[in-house]
Amino acid sequence: MSDAYEPRPEHHFTFGLWTVGNKGRDPFGFEVREPLDPFEAVERLAGLGAYGVNFHDDDLVPFGSPAAEKERILERFRAALDRTGMCVPMATTNLFSQPVFRDGAFTANDPDVRRFAIRKTFDAIDLAASFGAGVYVMWGGREGLECEAAKDVRLALDRYKEAVDLCCAHVRDRGYDMRFALEPKPNEPRGDMFLPTVGHALAFIGCLEWPDMVGLNPELAHETMSGLNFTHAVAQTLWHSKLFHIDLNAQRIGRYDQDFRFGSEALRDAFNLVRLLEDSGWDGMRHFDAHAYRTEGAEGVWEFARGCMRTYLILAEKARRFAEDREIQDALLEVRASSLAEPTSPAGLGREALDDLRSASYDVEALQVRGWPHERLDQLTLELLLGVR
Amino acid sequence: MSDAYEPRPEHHFTFGLWTVGNKGRDPFGFEVREPLDPFEAVERLAGLGAYGVNFHDDDLVPFGSPAAEKERILERFRAALDRTGMCVPMATTNLFSQPVFRDGAFTANDPDVRRFAIRKTFDAIDLAASFGAGVYVMWGGREGLECEAAKDVRLALDRYKEAVDLCCAHVRDRGYDMRFALEPKPNEPRGDMFLPTVGHALAFIGCLEWPDMVGLNPELAHETMSGLNFTHAVAQTLWHSKLFHIDLNAQRIGRYDQDFRFGSEALRDAFNLVRLLEDSGWDGMRHFDAHAYRTEGAEGVWEFARGCMRTYLILAEKARRFAEDREIQDALLEVRASSLAEPTSPAGLGREALDDLRSASYDVEALQVRGWPHERLDQLTLELLLGVR
Amino acid sequence: MSDAYEPRPEHHFTFGLWTVGNKGRDPFGFEVREPLDPFEAVERLAGLGAYGVNFHDDDLVPFGSPAAEKERILERFRAALDRTGMCVPMATTNLFSQPVFRDGAFTANDPDVRRFAIRKTFDAIDLAASFGAGVYVMWGGREGLECEAAKDVRLALDRYKEAVDLCCAHVRDRGYDMRFALEPKPNEPRGDMFLPTVGHALAFIGCLEWPDMVGLNPELAHETMSGLNFTHAVAQTLWHSKLFHIDLNAQRIGRYDQDFRFGSEALRDAFNLVRLLEDSGWDGMRHFDAHAYRTEGAEGVWEFARGCMRTYLILAEKARRFAEDREIQDALLEVRASSLAEPTSPAGLGREALDDLRSASYDVEALQVRGWPHERLDQLTLELLLGVR
Amino acid sequence: MSDAYEPRPEHHFTFGLWTVGNKGRDPFGFEVREPLDPFEAVERLAGLGAYGVNFHDDDLVPFGSPAAEKERILERFRAALDRTGMCVPMATTNLFSQPVFRDGAFTANDPDVRRFAIRKTFDAIDLAASFGAGVYVMWGGREGLECEAAKDVRLALDRYKEAVDLCCAHVRDRGYDMRFALEPKPNEPRGDMFLPTVGHALAFIGCLEWPDMVGLNPELAHETMSGLNFTHAVAQTLWHSKLFHIDLNAQRIGRYDQDFRFGSEALRDAFNLVRLLEDSGWDGMRHFDAHAYRTEGAEGVWEFARGCMRTYLILAEKARRFAEDREIQDALLEVRASSLAEPTSPAGLGREALDDLRSASYDVEALQVRGWPHERLDQLTLELLLGVR
Repeated sequence: MSDAYEPRPEHHFTFGLWTVGNKGRDPFGFEVREPLDPFEAVERLAGLGAYGVNFHDDDLVPFGSPAAEKERILERFRAALDRTGMCVPMATTNLFSQPVFRDGAFTANDPDVRRFAIRKTFDAIDLAASFGAGVYVMWGGREGLECEAAKDVRLALDRYKEAVDLCCAHVRDRGYDMRFALEPKPNEPRGDMFLPTVGHALAFIGCLEWPDMVGLNPELAHETMSGLNFTHAVAQTLWHSKLFHIDLNAQRIGRYDQDFRFGSEALRDAFNLVRLLEDSGWDGMRHFDAHAYRTEGAEGVWEFARGCMRTYLILAEKARRFAEDREIQDALLEVRASSLAEPTSPAGLGREALDDLRSASYDVEALQVRGWPHERLDQLTLELLLGVR
Repeated sequence: MSDAYEPRPEHHFTFGLWTVGNKGRDPFGFEVREPLDPFEAVERLAGLGAYGVNFHDDDLVPFGSPAAEKERILERFRAALDRTGMCVPMATTNLFSQPVFRDGAFTANDPDVRRFAIRKTFDAIDLAASFGAGVYVMWGGREGLECEAAKDVRLALDRYKEAVDLCCAHVRDRGYDMRFALEPKPNEPRGDMFLPTVGHALAFIGCLEWPDMVGLNPELAHETMSGLNFTHAVAQTLWHSKLFHIDLNAQRIGRYDQDFRFGSEALRDAFNLVRLLEDSGWDGMRHFDAHAYRTEGAEGVWEFARGCMRTYLILAEKARRFAEDREIQDALLEVRASSLAEPTSPAGLGREALDDLRSASYDVEALQVRGWPHERLDQLTLELLLGVR
Repeated sequence: MSDAYEPRPEHHFTFGLWTVGNKGRDPFGFEVREPLDPFEAVERLAGLGAYGVNFHDDDLVPFGSPAAEKERILERFRAALDRTGMCVPMATTNLFSQPVFRDGAFTANDPDVRRFAIRKTFDAIDLAASFGAGVYVMWGGREGLECEAAKDVRLALDRYKEAVDLCCAHVRDRGYDMRFALEPKPNEPRGDMFLPTVGHALAFIGCLEWPDMVGLNPELAHETMSGLNFTHAVAQTLWHSKLFHIDLNAQRIGRYDQDFRFGSEALRDAFNLVRLLEDSGWDGMRHFDAHAYRTEGAEGVWEFARGCMRTYLILAEKARRFAEDREIQDALLEVRASSLAEPTSPAGLGREALDDLRSASYDVEALQVRGWPHERLDQLTLELLLGVR
Repeated sequence: MSDAYEPRPEHHFTFGLWTVGNKGRDPFGFEVREPLDPFEAVERLAGLGAYGVNFHDDDLVPFGSPAAEKERILERFRAALDRTGMCVPMATTNLFSQPVFRDGAFTANDPDVRRFAIRKTFDAIDLAASFGAGVYVMWGGREGLECEAAKDVRLALDRYKEAVDLCCAHVRDRGYDMRFALEPKPNEPRGDMFLPTVGHALAFIGCLEWPDMVGLNPELAHETMSGLNFTHAVAQTLWHSKLFHIDLNAQRIGRYDQDFRFGSEALRDAFNLVRLLEDSGWDGMRHFDAHAYRTEGAEGVWEFARGCMRTYLILAEKARRFAEDREIQDALLEVRASSLAEPTSPAGLGREALDDLRSASYDVEALQVRGWPHERLDQLTLELLLGVR
């Protein structure tokens, strides 16, 4: 289907090896799909118009592989990238699957586990750098707890900070051109996880040794699990200049981590998100951290991948039309959307400005009765989304 | 009942006028209790052993009161404080009840509304200062939206920052000894609110003009509405040295803002929270932002207030016994709780330290099979809580 | 706007007096809109193309009105209905606003309160009958608890059953042509409410004295508060032949009762619901139990009402196109949607049928590897919804 | 520890083989514990004082085992039961792990899958009967959907009913003394599952061919995932005489299925539940469908199992003390708890009774101002739970 919504590399769509390679195992069921050769993943994604592919160290080189096997895998993978022109814009460490990390990696109570986790991350950073990845994601899949008494959260944050600082030190020492992106999540697999939301992670960054090297990788599903507004989370991340990467998918509030096809839940929210990303001119990767339903066979994986990208492009076009729609723009005037850009105190924070604010008088009665036509604006947006305007 | 759990002023328990004065109105029902005279509130709370009382400007002086009426009210209130020895450790502004704030106060699209909100806050700060309040709480009850298109969240954060900066400027200009405490909330009354969690607010503070003047007032119910772990939120706030105040109550996850009696839901979480507050030596006010069930009559309000304080004291005693319980302390050793305090890289972040980490070897097999007796530790804690050990 | 989505009486759209008459009061804010005269509500709704209007007894005749005042109100209201041709298809009792019902109405611990609640309902049923309402809704706004020890839920269900049976007896005794529709809700305003979901209420009906007289009024917002799939709830209600009425609106999972404009949240779910209602040929009223945002002024209320109906009609048209879309119909074949209509045991439940099932052999290997193209079907549906196919 | 909370067989505590045998695999991590021999499970549980052990067919006899292997396993298992005196009060079918069930078992779109699922269940029922299980649980782990268009829920309910009817027919045909217990769950592993709550399943039973043969197995974690009050769900199940079995564990609202140790979350709710079960005289099995944290090693599994039972016994003792506590009983009088047992209409449903209700007069003013001391009752209950009264 060669239409207006055909993905192309310049759209900067990326997928993780673990997403298209998801075998459909879940807490109650065994695998339903065969393992996907990373080599094939690259070929298929390139064919669909993706820009790049990302990986955890263990996705590409199984944990514990001997050196020779590792070399063979890397060579073959590099060849696939070369032939297709696909990039590796991001990589990350698997610090959650092996039993050694059951009580945490960077925040494990056992210092040897912490050191082993850092060592594994150093190695994976070297691997990422060798593929030119400019963003390194850190998701603390096991950084959390079920038994509250087992960890003092303040100490855990000390260790978390230390680990991120060490990784920054490693990157600086090696001279890599690489930034880190923390990925928050509230729970699952741990009962409660540290840095549970975009906000908690943004605050944490402020305490790091090299805060400029570290930003966020917000994930739609993770923030939505807590019922928080993901578009607002991304907006605040942009406001702090910390949007280094993004994970797109779909999720219902208050459920297990679903990682559904982008746009397949909460369509209006997906539109708001795409409108924000496009309007802000953000130039990062549109990464899909999602997977096909377990009901799918092998071919359905590619329908899934194509659907993620098409929906993004459809919503991006609607965002452009939103900006051009005369009636919508009139409605924005009515609600005085642009007045939010005006300083409240044009004269600043000095005494004179304060005195102005203190002495001004207001027609409170008039302000009390003024309503704002949000229903109309919202309905127009909805009808744009539904394609009937 | 003059027992070990009898509240006394040195416990630093405080209540808002709006909490014991809650008349029981809710979205589906009218008031069930008569208005409570602030004068009586002070007398009764003092009689129960509270340390102080807090207020919104409009709680004490109804919105739009003429100057003479205001004077009369303040005099009477001051007399009650003098006679009882009660303090006003905190005050805040009502920026949410009047129709003028329907689209926001500090982040209203209409600049006149924003300026009026700031003026109202300045006046309320002056009032707070006149009663010696050292903490000024800011809850942005209407800072949010339902219709996404109506506000660019990034601009809203610009205005929010500007407003908080202006309030800091006012305090500095007046020379008050006062700090601000932001109170996050995810939703209700707005569909989505800005600064929805403790994390988002902590991050926001980092961008203010005078970040040292601003901390948090985390509220148990607000953080719990999103299903986040409130104890962890408070721990991270302490980690950032930003716990300036706290709102204690009870709440079920994923529900309307319930503001139940402290401890009446999620007892184990309440215990973890009290243990953290007590162990950390935090010296702030234990403020109860809660109210009696709508089923109660006038006298039940005081049973409610007494219950909040008693439960806190019971849990505080259990926290002390936790620290002294031999079997629990042994279990903490087993899970290596104290090892989380050891630096992962004792040699720091320099190249030598990095080289040590890179070259160390680990007995991965041994680490893989090591389990941690969290079930036992958690069960012992539970039995302590149940009073059977 | 006289287009294809213009509401007309034959669409059977209805609104409650309390919906367009909502004054914008919420737990944190005062009223922002003037009271709406029921007379004007009827006129305006008729002008927008609605079919009818519904009410609680107290919406129309304020609680405690003297008889003469009541007569005057009813006459005026009747005149408005007559002039506009609007119907009153449904009515209900307000058993939640007055303090007398603070501990419940039909399940209050005080038998006098229970009797008063039944008496009030009898009167309101008589009023409903006088306007020809064929459906009488029962929402137990105060039937629930916060303090678990105060009520034995089994006894509460006894009393709930007794009250519904009494209301049925009253209708039978009076000879009205009226059916009852129970409206479940999980919480708010009570901490926990009895009959919290569509399922609990359906089960309850089976124990009533005259189960045929009682069905459901499922509400989108109420079921969604618990994160349950509302379309599935309605489908099960239809399966039990118990869909007597429906309340349409919009709601986010895990939040306070929002009652937003229909379609304004979870658009795909709204589409699934409309498709179910339209495909099933259900001939009941499409009632909107929602209200305008508190940010709106008086005129916005009618934008809100118009939006509810337009969105329904847009989605209904999409449901028709879903049935005609060749590619979608092919995709339905691929997932074998129609095979779900085939009996699993065409020979029934007898021994022969059982023996057939017991002795059949299956090519398990073949069944294990077969996948189902749900991603494609879902993506096609999404693109239909977005208007790009 | 041979104390008052020592579990004994007469307490009727049971565990599933899959609970103590849980290997700690989760969606993000591999197994951490070795497989547990069912033989050893029986021995260890017997040693801890449990009454019995339950299983899915595949727990005991791995899927696809040859007949000889099956025989060997069963013999060994039977020997363990014989030696220990442990019973098998309940069994169930695994209709969710194998890929064949990816789109459902009883409600799969493919009729062959449905028939295979029924055949597998028939075989498992025969196995259950051979061990004397009197209750057969049905959890429809894959009965649900993600892609709404793929299934008409009403047809799915037709097929679900047909399958349950067939299983009843099989039991009747074989002459087994066995009842069925449906286990509802809202989601996970499917996006949305059919019969999502206790209520939906109770209603469904009313439409079955042999409704007396079918009841419920409510699970604490499943109902709590939706934020519903589990104690109320069990109370309503008892009210319908449909509590055939129960699954005890712990869970936070709005999260993945956690299956934590009983009592480890929401302690007050656990107490309310135990009080209901004990006071009602319900004589079924207290089954723990939970597992040890993934952080535990092999020995921790038994700490976990012991903790479940101890906490139940501690709470049961508190329930007894609740009934004997003078102050609590006084508080119950104050809230008129026992008046809920009085008929509202002592004269019944006849015309005379109706006339009495219609003509009675009430002192509405007096009823309006009466409050109920729920705070005090709730606080006393809390203090009992905390062991300080």
